[in-house]
Amino acid sequence: MGDLVLGIDFGTASVRAAVIDTADGRELSSWVYAYRRNVQGNELFAVRQDPADYLEGLEISVLSALDKVDRSRICGIGIDVTGSTIMPVDVHGIPLYASLHTPSSAIWLWKDHSGIKEAETITNIAKEIRPAYLEQVGGVYSAELFWSKVFHCLHAAPEVMEKAASWVELADWLPFVLTGGDDIRKMYRSVCGAAHKALYNPDWGGYPDETFIRSLDERLLKLLDSLDGSMVRDASSPAGLLSSAWMGKFHLSSPVVVSVSAFDAHFGGVGAGVRPGTLVKTIGTSTCDLAVTKNKPVVKGAVGVVRDSIVPGLYGIEAGQSAVGDLFGWYVHDIAPKGMDFQTLDEKAKLLRPGESGLVVLDWFNGNRSPLLDQALSGMIVGLTLDSSPEEIYRSLIEATAFGARKIMERLKESGIAIDRIVVCGGIPRKNPLLLHIYADVLKKDIHLSRNRETCALGGAIAASVVSGLYASFPDAMAAMTAEEPQPVGADSSSYAVYDELFGLYSELYSAFGSPSWNGSLYEVMKRLLRLKEMRH
Amino acid sequence: MGDLVLGIDFGTASVRAAVIDTADGRELSSWVYAYRRNVQGNELFAVRQDPADYLEGLEISVLSALDKVDRSRICGIGIDVTGSTIMPVDVHGIPLYASLHTPSSAIWLWKDHSGIKEAETITNIAKEIRPAYLEQVGGVYSAELFWSKVFHCLHAAPEVMEKAASWVELADWLPFVLTGGDDIRKMYRSVCGAAHKALYNPDWGGYPDETFIRSLDERLLKLLDSLDGSMVRDASSPAGLLSSAWMGKFHLSSPVVVSVSAFDAHFGGVGAGVRPGTLVKTIGTSTCDLAVTKNKPVVKGAVGVVRDSIVPGLYGIEAGQSAVGDLFGWYVHDIAPKGMDFQTLDEKAKLLRPGESGLVVLDWFNGNRSPLLDQALSGMIVGLTLDSSPEEIYRSLIEATAFGARKIMERLKESGIAIDRIVVCGGIPRKNPLLLHIYADVLKKDIHLSRNRETCALGGAIAASVVSGLYASFPDAMAAMTAEEPQPVGADSSSYAVYDELFGLYSELYSAFGSPSWNGSLYEVMKRLLRLKEMRH
Repeated sequence: MGDLVLGIDFGTASVRAAVIDTADGRELSSWVYAYRRNVQGNELFAVRQDPADYLEGLEISVLSALDKVDRSRICGIGIDVTGSTIMPVDVHGIPLYASLHTPSSAIWLWKDHSGIKEAETITNIAKEIRPAYLEQVGGVYSAELFWSKVFHCLHAAPEVMEKAASWVELADWLPFVLTGGDDIRKMYRSVCGAAHKALYNPDWGGYPDETFIRSLDERLLKLLDSLDGSMVRDASSPAGLLSSAWMGKFHLSSPVVVSVSAFDAHFGGVGAGVRPGTLVKTIGTSTCDLAVTKNKPVVKGAVGVVRDSIVPGLYGIEAGQSAVGDLFGWYVHDIAPKGMDFQTLDEKAKLLRPGESGLVVLDWFNGNRSPLLDQALSGMIVGLTLDSSPEEIYRSLIEATAFGARKIMERLKESGIAIDRIVVCGGIPRKNPLLLHIYADVLKKDIHLSRNRETCALGGAIAASVVSGLYASFPDAMAAMTAEEPQPVGADSSSYAVYDELFGLYSELYSAFGSPSWNGSLYEVMKRLLRLKEMRH
Repeated sequence: MGDLVLGIDFGTASVRAAVIDTADGRELSSWVYAYRRNVQGNELFAVRQDPADYLEGLEISVLSALDKVDRSRICGIGIDVTGSTIMPVDVHGIPLYASLHTPSSAIWLWKDHSGIKEAETITNIAKEIRPAYLEQVGGVYSAELFWSKVFHCLHAAPEVMEKAASWVELADWLPFVLTGGDDIRKMYRSVCGAAHKALYNPDWGGYPDETFIRSLDERLLKLLDSLDGSMVRDASSPAGLLSSAWMGKFHLSSPVVVSVSAFDAHFGGVGAGVRPGTLVKTIGTSTCDLAVTKNKPVVKGAVGVVRDSIVPGLYGIEAGQSAVGDLFGWYVHDIAPKGMDFQTLDEKAKLLRPGESGLVVLDWFNGNRSPLLDQALSGMIVGLTLDSSPEEIYRSLIEATAFGARKIMERLKESGIAIDRIVVCGGIPRKNPLLLHIYADVLKKDIHLSRNRETCALGGAIAASVVSGLYASFPDAMAAMTAEEPQPVGADSSSYAVYDELFGLYSELYSAFGSPSWNGSLYEVMKRLLRLKEMRH
């Protein structure tokens, strides 16, 4: 029997396949494939992709990762994808984009915010007639979620909605493809996608009810009809065996079990060893915060609280920040002077003392996911003077995401979820030690780094090892397969006072621009920033 | 008798000498010399210069400008300088910097804000015991003014204060030098500098009184003693005849009268033909707004209201914006991507529609001169998203300065000063037609461009023509010598609505961050900006 598994992690811009030893979770081999196709459209806030990238990436990354290992030892595959990353398909599960080639028929990436207005409508109707729906998604139904996107498509490209037999999360579609599915009624849907994004909950009988969907638009009923609550599974369930066609493509001969998928961040949480008391932060283009609890908590402003969605058997809490790596990338690639690449900016920003720039930023460049759940917010920089430098602006962007992270920690604490340990994973932490130091100082906690670089892929591998029968449960597999780097990044208490002051200013602006009930004065904000700047010079 | 005069304009970074025909004000020849020395210091907000630049610039620019004209026709010289641009001198008027070579003994440029705290102290003490002093400078004594700077020097470099026989405006020192002065007690001080910057007013007997200065610091009394109110003159007075030494340097042989100077913007107003009902905006590194009235107005937030300071016989009102060209320069040179030079950014920004960027900026990158008179403010950008582009940021900076200009217009109107005509001059307008279009649309008025490029130098030439006896008064000389370009930049009423909306948002932020008495909510600001962005896309 095999003892190696494949974890495959579909991120925003690339896919990674990793071969993992189920004995200790160590990675034996891996391969990254960057999506290469472009889907250009005119819609504001639309971010679309081509499904061909996902298929080509799947094939190339897996083949390359398998190249250096003994293929006969492979026994399972676990996949994660970003979400809600969805697309319309026909009855056989063939992407409509393959024939239509229009932006509306392509993949709608998680960060596609084109459905801002539809999200507001959904929130307003749910507030009135289905308040329980909103509780599950933190109080506001966001533009990033399933129904906002399909509802927006109904307005922007009704012909696509008409042609679609259903809409699928790529996280559900890829296992369906690998297991040779050709009837979308038999596609498993992950509890992760269904519950966090599409308002599924067994408590109210599965997907949202007909009355609710009709009150949005009756033309959505056909789609609702295509969603079958009885097909929803958590990631400890198998999606099926790898089809013979794919066995051939991958040059595999022994049977391989494919697990039901989860979202990337959720498997990242699994791969980082999430357990009660631990906060896992997957820091990439955006940040996803994950925690698990034994009892059901109420967390206002969490993106979701769903049983079984992270670790089967526990409640999974997901929160997040919409722009982190994306924000730094925007700044460095689009805005900063040429020559000011990441390395140069990191080196220069490292030399600055907290508060020295006199800048404070609201990190809402792509809205605020948690805890405000409001996409209709934007980024803001305060404290600029004629001697503000690119490295000061860059550092203040990092600090802003740290303050955003602190807001989430505070909200978890207020909700009775004690966090004694922070583990980070994702693309940014290893590339940016400065960010980890700032986070440690702002959050006043040591930051542990997950051992496996490809933490999400490791989570997939853990699911694969469970569905292959190598471990009895997720916690068993996690105990054996996850680990952290020996040295955490320590918090430096000498920075606490300045960061408390800056966080105080951040919080004032946060409330002033983000809270409908705030009423106050901001007269002291610029003056305090200038004093900080003077003091630290 | 001669009929040509020299106007010499000392700006922030360079000096221009122009030979002007007194018959019609046309420029026959001119030369620009850029200061080349650097005075580096460590003090925050300090901007210092070397007097050698001013002397060398004087000599080279005048010699070069005279090169192409008949020297025997030259009969007068008028000079303007930025202000308060001051330095410490010995009893003979020799700059202390010549021997000390320290930043504190150098020229303190007008935009030097190192005395922010001292300015606050002066304001507070004046509020308590000499409220009339503040009325003359708009309600707040700013860090840019004479006493804030010398008071700060007392704290930062007391040894310089001790060695200084007096401190002089460069505007007063340069005519003193040209006329061979060697005793600072005999140096004329312009009413412009004395009244706008050093709290001089004949109504209270001249310079501020001993009690007031002692309540700042008794070590300032020596300096007060060196300021003699009876030496204060307006620019229709001669400072003397050009000394034989300078006659030699300039290869001149007929007598040349040197007028008392004024600040650059004030002579700019003269050269642009300021008269009741006209607002002259000198738009350069900063913007200076000038108006004149027959009766004494009260304008809260004007930098100054002083009789004779612009046009002798009228009340001169000065207001201004601290960072305009400087702000664009900071952005283009320090912050924007390489390749995004002024030309590229102008071309790209021109294609954007008002509101399309969804950005609004507070233009307080160097504090707010009018109408808030508060240096302890800073710049702010709101509405940033991950698709905000450098040209959008650039355009929003220009728009912010236009909104700042509108705030000043509104304040003039509230003060009973009707403006029916706007004339612009200074370095920016000819270089930046986009700015003129934006200003016309935001201010809802056609923008006239002064004919002479070197409008300040023309103002100096007008003073020179009056002290040479060629005209009986400033208005007579101005009527003959000033003119505008034939075609104004017209306001486009189709932009009014969007700019009204953006100006409304600007005004909310303006009050929220700039007014101690504001109390309100900013929750709608980002939402309205995003809606504007959506609407205009």
